[in-house]
Amino acid sequence: MYYEAISQCTQSLKLVEGWLNKTVAFAEAKNVDVDSILNGRLAPDMKPLIYQVQSACDYVKAGAAWLSGQRPPEHEDNEKTVEELRARIRKTVDFAQSVPQEQYQGAAGRKVSLSWAPGKVLGGKDYLLQMTIPNVYFHIAMVYAILRNSGVDVGKRDFLGAVNFVDA
Amino acid sequence: MYYEAISQCTQSLKLVEGWLNKTVAFAEAKNVDVDSILNGRLAPDMKPLIYQVQSACDYVKAGAAWLSGQRPPEHEDNEKTVEELRARIRKTVDFAQSVPQEQYQGAAGRKVSLSWAPGKVLGGKDYLLQMTIPNVYFHIAMVYAILRNSGVDVGKRDFLGAVNFVDA
Repeated sequence: MYYEAISQCTQSLKLVEGWLNKTVAFAEAKNVDVDSILNGRLAPDMKPLIYQVQSACDYVKAGAAWLSGQRPPEHEDNEKTVEELRARIRKTVDFAQSVPQEQYQGAAGRKVSLSWAPGKVLGGKDYLLQMTIPNVYFHIAMVYAILRNSGVDVGKRDFLGAVNFVDA
Repeated sequence: MYYEAISQCTQSLKLVEGWLNKTVAFAEAKNVDVDSILNGRLAPDMKPLIYQVQSACDYVKAGAAWLSGQRPPEHEDNEKTVEELRARIRKTVDFAQSVPQEQYQGAAGRKVSLSWAPGKVLGGKDYLLQMTIPNVYFHIAMVYAILRNSGVDVGKRDFLGAVNFVDA
């Protein structure tokens, strides 16, 4: 399930690229500066959209890496434009998709440490369920929320993406 | 993993009760009508906070039910107050926690149908990863986003809740 769960988080992150396309189209149609949306936030003491994308990417990257026994590649937080955010998402997706299913063997038994919790570790299952999944969806949802709050016409289907329905 | 994933979604939903406490305290301190926050939304064509709580509850309830081979209990969407939202969360949590781990046996092989996708079904794994988890976290995150946008001082730790760290 580790491989499948990280794959789904990766799919969800990929959807943000489509939302960025809608953002550019919206900014052009309304003649507003796209930077004002990228730097938009829901509260003065909350981080802006650019950070939310970076953070979603980092949780996908870290989940794919630690649960497969690797150190995550370093990605600097220096994105300022839509094109740079697209590139950040793509390199994250490329890394996550480069990890083969069999490399997640033993994920449940791994211990993951976090920089903000020195001296502590999380078991693989707790890391997936309590850290990776909630944080990936939190930050993706904050991107969505800021776009919604800015007037961009993203909708719930854009959040869910493709669903593997089969005929009943 | 089905039992554990639903348990974690249930834990995350439970946290919303604490956010509602902060909302009441904020409304009292600022002398604002708490109803204006409960009916707050991020965009004119988006659903308000009350709906986001109801919807998060419904995805937790449905996940716990269908993946354990049960029909979900019916919960009417008639909440208007903080107390009623607390009750909705509690009955959802009570139901989800009433399902024993062994009842999730065979969850991967179940087929789940959704009212808005007639003639189609989702396999148990896709239902968990593509429907339950993203929707639970989406709606909980929208509650958080509306509260943040209203000025309530919820923070990331309130979203994550307790994390099972152990000594390294």
